[in-house]
Amino acid sequence: MPNFRLLVEYDGTDFEGWQIQPGPARTVQGALAAALEHITGVSVTVTGAGRTDAGVHAEGQVANARIATRLAPVDLQRALNAVLPRDVAVREVAWVPDAFDARRHARSKRYVYRLWTGASRSPLRERRSLWVRSSLDLEAMREAGRALVGTHDFTSFRGAGSAVCGSVRTLLRLEIRGQLGGEVLLDFEGTGFLRHMVRNLVGTLLEVGRGRRAPAAMPALLAALDRSQAGPTAPARGLTLIHVHCDFPLESGGLEPERVDGGEPLG
Amino acid sequence: MPNFRLLVEYDGTDFEGWQIQPGPARTVQGALAAALEHITGVSVTVTGAGRTDAGVHAEGQVANARIATRLAPVDLQRALNAVLPRDVAVREVAWVPDAFDARRHARSKRYVYRLWTGASRSPLRERRSLWVRSSLDLEAMREAGRALVGTHDFTSFRGAGSAVCGSVRTLLRLEIRGQLGGEVLLDFEGTGFLRHMVRNLVGTLLEVGRGRRAPAAMPALLAALDRSQAGPTAPARGLTLIHVHCDFPLESGGLEPERVDGGEPLG
Repeated sequence: MPNFRLLVEYDGTDFEGWQIQPGPARTVQGALAAALEHITGVSVTVTGAGRTDAGVHAEGQVANARIATRLAPVDLQRALNAVLPRDVAVREVAWVPDAFDARRHARSKRYVYRLWTGASRSPLRERRSLWVRSSLDLEAMREAGRALVGTHDFTSFRGAGSAVCGSVRTLLRLEIRGQLGGEVLLDFEGTGFLRHMVRNLVGTLLEVGRGRRAPAAMPALLAALDRSQAGPTAPARGLTLIHVHCDFPLESGGLEPERVDGGEPLG
Repeated sequence: MPNFRLLVEYDGTDFEGWQIQPGPARTVQGALAAALEHITGVSVTVTGAGRTDAGVHAEGQVANARIATRLAPVDLQRALNAVLPRDVAVREVAWVPDAFDARRHARSKRYVYRLWTGASRSPLRERRSLWVRSSLDLEAMREAGRALVGTHDFTSFRGAGSAVCGSVRTLLRLEIRGQLGGEVLLDFEGTGFLRHMVRNLVGTLLEVGRGRRAPAAMPALLAALDRSQAGPTAPARGLTLIHVHCDFPLESGGLEPERVDGGEPLG
């Protein structure tokens, strides 16, 4: 039964997160499994690299599924995108070796959190950004960010209800970019993230940006190993999973030379 | 009764256009009037510079309303944004002279139509863009566009059901920009637009981009004065009203030095 790698984009607003739940919850994993079952006639298990929370978006979620189909990747992609609801689509499908597992082979993930710092709320940015009324000291946020990059026990930024499986993670990179017009992007890359970790980091960095917390206090906050000392959890809607790097042969392609989403589409 | 100028942003997806309609239709003008009535306790007439269609968005719609309130513009703005639904907001409020009328004093409007030319549909662009599967010849589209700029009788691009009030308009500018990653923006500026004119121009330019219509055929198409010879009406969701230029003293400000939405919000 061929193993397929899926590159998945979704607008998380109307999903109750990635993971299938008991009951009628609308989830991305559930939508993909239902579409694959509709196409193949058999039940399919979809494994995702990361379990995004309700309201979190993805440009580049990675999943894999072993699917009893003779469809080539490009045809499976077309069939999927015809059947999937409008707020989820598959950007790329590729054959991968049977041993490939999106969750086990995910080596790093990149998340971007979007802020809108205009003078009034912005309906056109409403689904993708958090509106921050106060002006932000981006330099102070960057200084705080530098103390967070590296390998740390991130217990202070760990959401309640996490499964117990260690709390040491490596934050590889944290860039804070102010865009022309009032958008601010917080760009995180790490080997793995605890539950709500990115949103808790954002909530804490926002306190720094507003001058309510000193950048120099970050090492002590990490050392405290105490969630109650960090800032609040920023809302889900500002967060997007941009990219998952999988450490497996042929990371971004497949076993076939065919690339579904390659090249420059413009003439 | 002071006259206020409103700069309005909305996500048009869930509105049945700008203009109040009989019956329960959800309209932007209706939402603004209801919010103003809620705040002031009296019925208010809101005049918009342009009547955007159902599904069309705005970053910079301009409206005015004579409102029986002693609230200063900045306070009226805060009250409005607290009461308005999430998909509409007022970016700026200013006092304007009593004679100011958003519709009569609108001298030019800028619309942008967004295309997404990636290999598969994009859920995160779904509300704002039209997905175009085929690759587009942007140079051919630009050549066609150059023939459309200027003062012409645009009857060939006029939607059915227009009120009879002349069909000569001046298209001041038409820029077609391919963005990195596969987005294409069609940027129109004109002194006025007939009903569906921008969307009919886009539908026709898409035929040119796909090689189904020659750029050199544009002058004859304009001269035909025949809607049936032009391309189809492109869907509303790709269209955004970006800016309205009003020719009146103190165009972008008000009578007071106070600017509600000015300056650089970043620290």
